[in-house]
Amino acid sequence: MARSQLRPQPGRRPPPHFMALTLAAGAASAPKHRQLYDQIRGHVLSGRLTGGARLPASRTLAREIGCSRNTVLSAYELLLAEGYLTGTPGSGTFVSRVLPDQFLAVNNGRPSGPPDTRGTTAQAALSTRGRVLAEQTPRPRGPAGAFMLGPDAAHFPFDIWGRMLGRTWRRPDPALLRYGDPAGHRPLREAIAEYLRATRALRCDWRQVVITSGAQQALDLVVRAMLDPGDAVWCEDPGYGGLRGPLIAAGARIAPVPVDTEGLSVSTGRARAPAARLAVVAPSHQFPLGVVMSLGRRLELLDWARAAGAWVLEDDYDSEYRYAGRPLAALQSLDAASGAGRVIYAGTFSKVTFPSLRIGYLVVPDALVEPMVRVRAALDDHPSAVVQPALAAFIGEGHFGAHIRRMRARYAARQESLIAAAQRWLDDKLILAPDEAGLHLVARMTPALKRRMNDAQAAERAAAAGIATSALSGYAVEARSDPALLLGYAAVPEDRIETSVRSLAAALAG
Amino acid sequence: MARSQLRPQPGRRPPPHFMALTLAAGAASAPKHRQLYDQIRGHVLSGRLTGGARLPASRTLAREIGCSRNTVLSAYELLLAEGYLTGTPGSGTFVSRVLPDQFLAVNNGRPSGPPDTRGTTAQAALSTRGRVLAEQTPRPRGPAGAFMLGPDAAHFPFDIWGRMLGRTWRRPDPALLRYGDPAGHRPLREAIAEYLRATRALRCDWRQVVITSGAQQALDLVVRAMLDPGDAVWCEDPGYGGLRGPLIAAGARIAPVPVDTEGLSVSTGRARAPAARLAVVAPSHQFPLGVVMSLGRRLELLDWARAAGAWVLEDDYDSEYRYAGRPLAALQSLDAASGAGRVIYAGTFSKVTFPSLRIGYLVVPDALVEPMVRVRAALDDHPSAVVQPALAAFIGEGHFGAHIRRMRARYAARQESLIAAAQRWLDDKLILAPDEAGLHLVARMTPALKRRMNDAQAAERAAAAGIATSALSGYAVEARSDPALLLGYAAVPEDRIETSVRSLAAALAG
Repeated sequence: MARSQLRPQPGRRPPPHFMALTLAAGAASAPKHRQLYDQIRGHVLSGRLTGGARLPASRTLAREIGCSRNTVLSAYELLLAEGYLTGTPGSGTFVSRVLPDQFLAVNNGRPSGPPDTRGTTAQAALSTRGRVLAEQTPRPRGPAGAFMLGPDAAHFPFDIWGRMLGRTWRRPDPALLRYGDPAGHRPLREAIAEYLRATRALRCDWRQVVITSGAQQALDLVVRAMLDPGDAVWCEDPGYGGLRGPLIAAGARIAPVPVDTEGLSVSTGRARAPAARLAVVAPSHQFPLGVVMSLGRRLELLDWARAAGAWVLEDDYDSEYRYAGRPLAALQSLDAASGAGRVIYAGTFSKVTFPSLRIGYLVVPDALVEPMVRVRAALDDHPSAVVQPALAAFIGEGHFGAHIRRMRARYAARQESLIAAAQRWLDDKLILAPDEAGLHLVARMTPALKRRMNDAQAAERAAAAGIATSALSGYAVEARSDPALLLGYAAVPEDRIETSVRSLAAALAG
Repeated sequence: MARSQLRPQPGRRPPPHFMALTLAAGAASAPKHRQLYDQIRGHVLSGRLTGGARLPASRTLAREIGCSRNTVLSAYELLLAEGYLTGTPGSGTFVSRVLPDQFLAVNNGRPSGPPDTRGTTAQAALSTRGRVLAEQTPRPRGPAGAFMLGPDAAHFPFDIWGRMLGRTWRRPDPALLRYGDPAGHRPLREAIAEYLRATRALRCDWRQVVITSGAQQALDLVVRAMLDPGDAVWCEDPGYGGLRGPLIAAGARIAPVPVDTEGLSVSTGRARAPAARLAVVAPSHQFPLGVVMSLGRRLELLDWARAAGAWVLEDDYDSEYRYAGRPLAALQSLDAASGAGRVIYAGTFSKVTFPSLRIGYLVVPDALVEPMVRVRAALDDHPSAVVQPALAAFIGEGHFGAHIRRMRARYAARQESLIAAAQRWLDDKLILAPDEAGLHLVARMTPALKRRMNDAQAAERAAAAGIATSALSGYAVEARSDPALLLGYAAVPEDRIETSVRSLAAALAG
């Protein structure tokens, strides 16, 4: 038996606890690297090793516990592959920062020792992957009060929608009843392709469109088709939290990449995770910051993807709502024009119809169409056919375009009202700049307010007063943005904006 | 540099080619175990190492290529974790049999050398996982001719269905428009729980019901919540092919377990994969064999699950259609009565409404409800809310029960007609025994027919004559069942049964 008490190593952040490691010898024991793996994993899960803690160099650890360096390297490699550790050769090995909260929360109340990973109650019954997934922050739900994110679903023309559903299904085409194309209902794919060509300058054919059950499922399909466990993925930081579940489930390593005024910092991405297989970006209107990616940055991103043989997932989640300025064409059109075919485009109907519709889509490069559809068939096949033909008719007969035009005017007016009211009532607390697009504003906290609280505390105070905002810091992994609140204005009737702003001002008062 | 030409080892099946392995040394090289991993993986992908080939013992290989045994063990472990290899300590390490065709098919036309795993055309553009998924056999589609598997969707009461959709959506409850409960729409969950308690003796509450987009997605959710990469899963052999995609995507190791006249052979499962975390079974009516699992075997399976801390996924895909005899209660009720809570029950509406509806559900043990719903939220959230309230009303107002009763009588008559026609026209070719349940029969080939062809050839001949059957062997991984054709009778109008049987007889004539 060899035993080691590892003391904190020099590094970005020393481990807060000593790490006790013991290797048993003998034929009945598990291989040594497996023992080491189990014990380090146990320390991470139990919270004894926290996110960012630097692990000893393999050589050092091998010497201390009396095993070969290969044993340590193997254990580290397994832990890297499963996302417990991060690091690159030469720069050191660290406990993953990306999931520390999730891993640690599993073990609240059991502060020491490797956890029972196969318990019988609540989260403990899940696998390690399952527990990390269960610890992700769920999407906020509940009534769309001020200033929840999301669209105003109440103005969707449900009379038309109900009529189309009834019309399709009272005497359905028999072809609709069988298992359909795993890529989705052809008329809906055609309608989407036509719409994207016209409004987003996409270069695509209906065959390239794959219907999914929402944007999150679209990502879930892409990561399982395009990534192997351990592959790194660039994610915008701060960014959309819904990415994390599918990435974790697929065993991907999340590489947070900062966003500046031109969008995702490609140079930082290259430096941090040069071998990433996928970058997920929202170039038209970054979530949550609202940045439009500059043309230079777009070209830089596509250059990287081409050279690295990597993929770019373009999340175009709310590009329909642009109130001023001229949007850059979608990244997909720039990529398709060059013939490179590295961009997979994702869109959703959640923001332009109503969230519970749960229909999204991918537009995949030509070469990926057939294999992607086959992967889809192997996983969960097409979403319900009940919605698709009605939605195709809704788009095809012009109701969709008319709805977007009506809502665009409505939302633009609401954004103006919000800014005006904020100038009157929140001037000393929050700074709201207009945004040419989207359904929310980033309200940065003034120095005076920052001295009194951080953005999470501000959001809590607002919530206590019945105002649903979200803290910008909640969307960050490593990024340290200025504290700010996200104010969704789209779902707030105009006559409630001013009173809601006053309630918010009162909640944040000293 | 060390070089080795590995010659076939004694074992279940020697490798058909020599395996050339080379290790580079020096600081610029990848770690040795990673080099070894890459090369062996390359040989598997290129087909030079085929399924079942035994790999040399770690000690032997280490000696031959001049590295430490730990290096070999680490490489093997990574390959085992990713499913390229199978094996247990002491019994040897083999190239995975489960996926050989899929891996090999990737590389047709590139017979030698490690493949370019990041090519740019078709399947090659996918990750290794994606390529294996893309090579799964897709679900058969197309018009429901004789003798396709599946229900007769044309008799579903679409007038009522269309009315309910229209009624729900012309003036929807505002609560329906927001993101809903990730477990699904409460009235539908209540309707399903009540139905299952009444008809399948399930012990459950509506809170335990999680709505999914079909049975395949239900499995996909369970494996990601309950399994870690490398965990073994017992799968019935022969069995439902739709399991494979989600299991492969999750990095699970598929352990095929034979089915005998009492159902899944628990003792074989224990012997082959004692540490499996999950068993997927269809105890009410095994697919495709139609076996009902005996009570003794059910108790044995539950005993194993309890002792091993493993889970059982009960796939109750067509239990609604039982024409005679008294069904055993669901496995879930046996398990829930004991308080063990190891059974997760899965059902689908595909067989009782129409396949493209794509709505299924899970009933999870109490302790799993909250974590499972959280995992669901992290992955793809709830399926479209458009279908759920209409389906809840359809069940709640009695239309669902009435539809099942009508179809049960219709299907029973069709099964009788099929058997009678087969006795008249197919007597010397196929032997059809009645089945008390389900939507298809297993038609075993007579010795005379077997001498002339196997079941895949028989199915091909039938297809050429416009008769869609499927070969039993197509559902097997390792199982060597008697050759047989599956004949779906549910979707064949009675007046077409006899002519279809005659066409089939002609197609199989000498």
